[in-house]
Amino acid sequence: MASGCSELESAIEVLVRNFYVYAKRKGKDDKMNKKEFLKMVTQEMQHVLTNTQNKEAANKLIHSLDADGDEKISFDEYWTLIGEIAKKLSLQMAMQCQERQ
Amino acid sequence: MASGCSELESAIEVLVRNFYVYAKRKGKDDKMNKKEFLKMVTQEMQHVLTNTQNKEAANKLIHSLDADGDEKISFDEYWTLIGEIAKKLSLQMAMQCQERQ
Repeated sequence: MASGCSELESAIEVLVRNFYVYAKRKGKDDKMNKKEFLKMVTQEMQHVLTNTQNKEAANKLIHSLDADGDEKISFDEYWTLIGEIAKKLSLQMAMQCQERQ
Repeated sequence: MASGCSELESAIEVLVRNFYVYAKRKGKDDKMNKKEFLKMVTQEMQHVLTNTQNKEAANKLIHSLDADGDEKISFDEYWTLIGEIAKKLSLQMAMQCQERQ
């Protein structure tokens, strides 16, 4: 994507690019395995995971991966997983907004 | 979120914050209406929408909103909608990666 992107567009690009950094590590396919996903969470989401609620959400997600047949995470699944963590942040933000009103 | 966040964490925060910029405009509820969503797409996603494939994805999404009963977009729906556009970017990136191999 060229320069001149909005903050939102750049943020979307960061999320897309991040997936390929971990999924493409060995040049195999366009999916992350569980180990790669755990590595990504540990390396890239340290700060988010210091919050207990977020940590619980992340743990729940990681455990739910065990139930998955192929143990691979596609881009769609990655987006949903990150969305679950974003949702927790969103709830915190909504509460903060209500407190200010 | 405090400083020291990774690029990924900051990107997630931008996406969460962006939702509230448009959904909280009138301090009513935690949902965007269709007009607010269209305004967000026009103002924040200009660059993404210059690409024909992305524009088609966005148009499809916007039209699909008509079918929604309450015509409101919750954070979950917002995340899914942005995910559809991110998926298009993801496919483009995957193709570029394959070309390089």
